[in-house]
Amino acid sequence: MKAIRIGLLGAGTVAGGVVKVLERNRAEIQRRAGRGIDVAAVAARDLAKARRSLGDAVALTDDFDALVRRADIDIVVELIGGTSRARELVLAAIAAGKPVVTANKALLAIHGTEIFAAARERGVAVGFEAAVAGGIPIIKTLREGLAANHIGWIAGIINGTTNFILSEMRSKGLDFAAVLAEAQRLGYAEADPSFDIEGIDAAHKATIMSAIAFGTPVQFERAHVEGIAGLQAADIRYAEQLGYRIKLLGITKRREDAQGATVGIELRVHPTLIPAKRLIANVEGAMNAVVVHGDAVGSTLHYGKGAGAEPTGSAVVADLMDVTRLITADPDHRVPALAFQPHALAATPVLAIDETITAFYLRLRVADEAGVLADITRILAEHSISIDAVLQRESGEGERQTDLVILTHDTLEGRMRAALAKMQALGSVLAPIVRIRKEELA
Amino acid sequence: MKAIRIGLLGAGTVAGGVVKVLERNRAEIQRRAGRGIDVAAVAARDLAKARRSLGDAVALTDDFDALVRRADIDIVVELIGGTSRARELVLAAIAAGKPVVTANKALLAIHGTEIFAAARERGVAVGFEAAVAGGIPIIKTLREGLAANHIGWIAGIINGTTNFILSEMRSKGLDFAAVLAEAQRLGYAEADPSFDIEGIDAAHKATIMSAIAFGTPVQFERAHVEGIAGLQAADIRYAEQLGYRIKLLGITKRREDAQGATVGIELRVHPTLIPAKRLIANVEGAMNAVVVHGDAVGSTLHYGKGAGAEPTGSAVVADLMDVTRLITADPDHRVPALAFQPHALAATPVLAIDETITAFYLRLRVADEAGVLADITRILAEHSISIDAVLQRESGEGERQTDLVILTHDTLEGRMRAALAKMQALGSVLAPIVRIRKEELA
Repeated sequence: MKAIRIGLLGAGTVAGGVVKVLERNRAEIQRRAGRGIDVAAVAARDLAKARRSLGDAVALTDDFDALVRRADIDIVVELIGGTSRARELVLAAIAAGKPVVTANKALLAIHGTEIFAAARERGVAVGFEAAVAGGIPIIKTLREGLAANHIGWIAGIINGTTNFILSEMRSKGLDFAAVLAEAQRLGYAEADPSFDIEGIDAAHKATIMSAIAFGTPVQFERAHVEGIAGLQAADIRYAEQLGYRIKLLGITKRREDAQGATVGIELRVHPTLIPAKRLIANVEGAMNAVVVHGDAVGSTLHYGKGAGAEPTGSAVVADLMDVTRLITADPDHRVPALAFQPHALAATPVLAIDETITAFYLRLRVADEAGVLADITRILAEHSISIDAVLQRESGEGERQTDLVILTHDTLEGRMRAALAKMQALGSVLAPIVRIRKEELA
Repeated sequence: MKAIRIGLLGAGTVAGGVVKVLERNRAEIQRRAGRGIDVAAVAARDLAKARRSLGDAVALTDDFDALVRRADIDIVVELIGGTSRARELVLAAIAAGKPVVTANKALLAIHGTEIFAAARERGVAVGFEAAVAGGIPIIKTLREGLAANHIGWIAGIINGTTNFILSEMRSKGLDFAAVLAEAQRLGYAEADPSFDIEGIDAAHKATIMSAIAFGTPVQFERAHVEGIAGLQAADIRYAEQLGYRIKLLGITKRREDAQGATVGIELRVHPTLIPAKRLIANVEGAMNAVVVHGDAVGSTLHYGKGAGAEPTGSAVVADLMDVTRLITADPDHRVPALAFQPHALAATPVLAIDETITAFYLRLRVADEAGVLADITRILAEHSISIDAVLQRESGEGERQTDLVILTHDTLEGRMRAALAKMQALGSVLAPIVRIRKEELA
């Protein structure tokens, strides 16, 4: 079946990510979606700059209005940002009968009601997974994965810049201004960071999640928004002494009366103390995380990169695959049970355990005498297993044996098995060696 | 449009959760899916027991074979567990042209290839979100949300019983046997816990995730499985000293050659040391969490309840809603942009910030003199704001002012605003009061 053809509006960071992901994972995307996805053209204001950043393979145009109407384009991807020109182009694409995928949170938080109504009128889909929490599929999770739930509240770290700044303020004990300057130097904060630090970006995202969770139109104009510029290092310290961390959260809550009827919604962004023991309190740096509380499921947490070219590209391309399925009538283009099209399954074998690669933790009960460690490290070296750390417990008064703990670097399990047999045979090893695998999950 | 009618096979814990969620969230499910979902009948072996646990409203039958073929039933939900009778009934339902939703991980890990082939042949869907990690929508996340990614590896805490035991072993310093007995007493472990503690349950789930991630048939028979019965408290302690925690992980990894071609898959369940600083290392008790590493998105983590009547029911009902959309030709039954059907949006207002309810952190710079705390607590009491904790810094040598930090319980923001104005007017309050909202996120 012929590939889906998309038109990209904008040639910035996210557009670069989308083009790269579509290109690199081309075969895999086709194996999953049943059709390839091709970039037909990219509209950019500065064609020379776009050519430099996107490479030679992509067709460029500076005529945005023509691109959204081109008959050979199946889906329009809006990545120019802002709410004025983006609104015009998205509405023009919809009017031309094109499904739209967008990463534009401001556009949807402010003009979502108009855009979704136009899309429904015209019978086209609007995908916006990338608009909230970047690579974390939180829109799909709220809209489909947790759809059985009466949702009580959502609280999210949904702005990486401010979370990076708060993490640094806490770990280094610095005040806001000092950390902001550092964040700008490192590229974690923009030259004009006001949208981020004033909480507006987070409020756009919270607005969208609120509408989806509670079944209301978007109500950005009623959101309460406070940023982090006023936070002082002293308060972060006091909060810590009391067992709390301070995070900039986007929060939306259902408020019910005594009979359980929904009477209102809280929608607010502000610095918030949260118990340090909560998983979300330990989300550091520029990462995002969203906690959703549903009546059936309880609390779930969804964590990942909230920004960046490829994480955002991951969400845009997932939307493109969903829309591809929608506009492909063939029932074979439903989501396949095993994620890949049945004819595209591969017979890749599961490796025998001896062929797997992990690091190891070893604990040896050894005689407390000279040369034991030398014997053991020699055996590991002979099997090309390198050592990461050694922990030798001091033997107690009068004890003549002790525990020797070794962490290794990654190795083939088969090698470790052979080395273990050799070590176990040493006279100085007094008990069965304990071995537990170790993964860095980095 | 008339409601979808489902037939439930089995009347155990999960069936109870499904019935309860469908009943309690009936209106909301219809607002999202565009159609109601009714339980047409439940098949149970012990009808009297099923009547007691499911109540009077549900039609019961003991004829499982008839139920899967009944013309008035649109979707069959398999909740009996096991791999023999469940396989027969699922295949019979598929043969009768019924879509199937199942929570049965063993069935799919072992007979998935046969079942998915039969479903494809007959053109019906098989939903199995509930089979892995209970209420966490990890199947949808892997299959759709992260579909743009070339997945490198998945590592998950996907068995609550063993994670509860390991958490207790670590926090109490006890050995496996002692904690297992306690877990059985508390209902966290079954009388015969072997499927859990030997890692078999986790291996079923890892097998399913592996197939979806890498596009292969299910290969449970090739999984390497080790449980936690051999773990000793000493090793948990040593691991901690080295900066690691020990978790039972289900792991599946892609192995590529130097050219990037996939040459094999690792599929294994075993106790694993992981760095204590990783979010997943801090998943405690019976909770589940899955980390997915994709080339575009990086690492994402998905956390929630992995078992229990309603968390599992949440996943079963989400599948029922997906299947409902699939078998309803009307394009209005696509996933709506704002999660709810456009005509079912509610005009629920966002509350003014004064109407929102949170707890507060207050920091007051006060004169170090008698009566200050009394004045402040009196003002809070007059506004019906109760105090959770007070932290008073000792003033330094010769200092005549100090910081007073107060945590309050939940209150209306309007009340706090009024109280703050009164406190700020006190002569003993020497600087603008810092107030930061606090949320327990419990």
